[in-house]
Amino acid sequence: MTETQLFGRMTLIGVGLLGSSLARACKERGLVGEIIGTARSQATLDKTLALGICDRVFLDPAEAVKDADLVVICAPVGAYAEIGAAIAPALRPGMIVTDVGSVKQAVLRDLGALIPEGVHLVPGHPVAGTEHSGPEAGFAELFENRHCILTPSPGEDDAAIAQVQALWEACGSRVEIMEATHHDRVLGITSHLPHIIAYTIVGTAADLEESERAEVIRFSAGGFRDFTRIAGSDPVMWRDIFLNNREAVLEILQRFNEDLTALQRAIRWGEGETLEKLFTRTRAIRRGIIEEGQAGTFDAREPRAAAAKTQGPDDRGSE
Amino acid sequence: MTETQLFGRMTLIGVGLLGSSLARACKERGLVGEIIGTARSQATLDKTLALGICDRVFLDPAEAVKDADLVVICAPVGAYAEIGAAIAPALRPGMIVTDVGSVKQAVLRDLGALIPEGVHLVPGHPVAGTEHSGPEAGFAELFENRHCILTPSPGEDDAAIAQVQALWEACGSRVEIMEATHHDRVLGITSHLPHIIAYTIVGTAADLEESERAEVIRFSAGGFRDFTRIAGSDPVMWRDIFLNNREAVLEILQRFNEDLTALQRAIRWGEGETLEKLFTRTRAIRRGIIEEGQAGTFDAREPRAAAAKTQGPDDRGSE
Repeated sequence: MTETQLFGRMTLIGVGLLGSSLARACKERGLVGEIIGTARSQATLDKTLALGICDRVFLDPAEAVKDADLVVICAPVGAYAEIGAAIAPALRPGMIVTDVGSVKQAVLRDLGALIPEGVHLVPGHPVAGTEHSGPEAGFAELFENRHCILTPSPGEDDAAIAQVQALWEACGSRVEIMEATHHDRVLGITSHLPHIIAYTIVGTAADLEESERAEVIRFSAGGFRDFTRIAGSDPVMWRDIFLNNREAVLEILQRFNEDLTALQRAIRWGEGETLEKLFTRTRAIRRGIIEEGQAGTFDAREPRAAAAKTQGPDDRGSE
Repeated sequence: MTETQLFGRMTLIGVGLLGSSLARACKERGLVGEIIGTARSQATLDKTLALGICDRVFLDPAEAVKDADLVVICAPVGAYAEIGAAIAPALRPGMIVTDVGSVKQAVLRDLGALIPEGVHLVPGHPVAGTEHSGPEAGFAELFENRHCILTPSPGEDDAAIAQVQALWEACGSRVEIMEATHHDRVLGITSHLPHIIAYTIVGTAADLEESERAEVIRFSAGGFRDFTRIAGSDPVMWRDIFLNNREAVLEILQRFNEDLTALQRAIRWGEGETLEKLFTRTRAIRRGIIEEGQAGTFDAREPRAAAAKTQGPDDRGSE
């Protein structure tokens, strides 16, 4: 092992945006000795070999995890139960299994019972991504200055948790440890709700008649384009997120609906004061986020965005 | 007049983000001989003098528009009737009045009757902006490669329209001419609806209890941050936009609500196929926007965003 190496052999189950980014980050920094890949199709696996992302590949997940020190599931959450059943017989005590899924209670539910005694399960969620998918979309810097949330069960082996934490920190992330239920609730608001809304609004536009739809695309700079970027994310991944964080998502959606109805009513009845008060309040939240960023503890890239006005036109204009 | 000069004297009524950006663009490119400014407060006017944005300033709008060749209203749309009443007596035949408001039917409604015979009214909407406000937030490049929509009444003087068009083109914009009703409907979808939604979602988060709210800000990178940026826009400007484009906004909001209810129902009943189909469809719209951008006719900055994955971490990550 070299000085920076954390694991001898890492197996990626799924090599899309996140899996391939993790592989690149590990290669670039010498964090693992060997990277094994498995995926649903040989075409994808061939691509990872051609791109130099994986050292060896197997179509059979059980074959792929054999003798691994770390197994990282980078597949849609809906496939976890099937993956768990496929790899369980090949897992050996002392191995660590982690993942990159956006919901965490479901991981414990689907994998918890399948993982053999002595194998450590340390679920993880790197809060990072783009709207692009596939092995060619990955890049080594994806996780830099991003949060990575780990949600191990109470009583999980501390050394195993520390090893997974070290891996993500070496990729540039800030690691947080929290309960899976809490994770699903917070991310339900910061990530899942925005995605539902973005998918809906872009869907509403898609239903317009052809001539109007063309103009919506043309004048999308007014805010709509931000939504299309979010709504361009991987369909299967997001299907599984919503289905596997149903309760938290429906609860927050209910609140959102009530608030939207109130706002709609204020517009209908011309209640200018109500609108202005709400809009002033939301502006304060934006400032809170920028301040966290500028303090350097939150996201090093936020100040750049805030400074964009002095550098040139803002792609993400507000009018 | 120099070769590039289009107007001898331009009066800005309001010198916030858009007004001050227009002033800077005109100064930098020598498009006008002299810039006169007026605003509600002397403090704002003093700032524009200190920043070198205006050559002369007046608190009295009538005084400010006297002898102007071009008057540009850069104030919240709700103030137009009052502004129109104040400047009308000082307007002279041959002068051109335009504006930068985000709704256009209301402009014809509020100003049309007040503008004296022989004065040309050419309403405009530069589709550009940031979430920042005030004269210090402006920059000369704000309008570059952005659309600017003009909505003159049928029968308006062609030469006057051409002059306003030339001004925006000289600022780097692509000018479109369309009917005010059509403008309000298209922008209702691309801009007004996204803003309502963003204001609502950030308001919903603001109502969370303190501990959760702090975590939402902390993990805002998952999509929520995009919404806070939009919801950080000027409260008074947006209050006026919603109140003055009420019908189009309520109509599109109704459609959005129906679509959201359907999506919510699909999540509740675990209809994975419905979700995946919708999400695949919205992805196609995103691709349409990127393709328009890459073809070079739409937005020169879009390809940069699409290429971000190869350059480094995307601030606007999707998971």
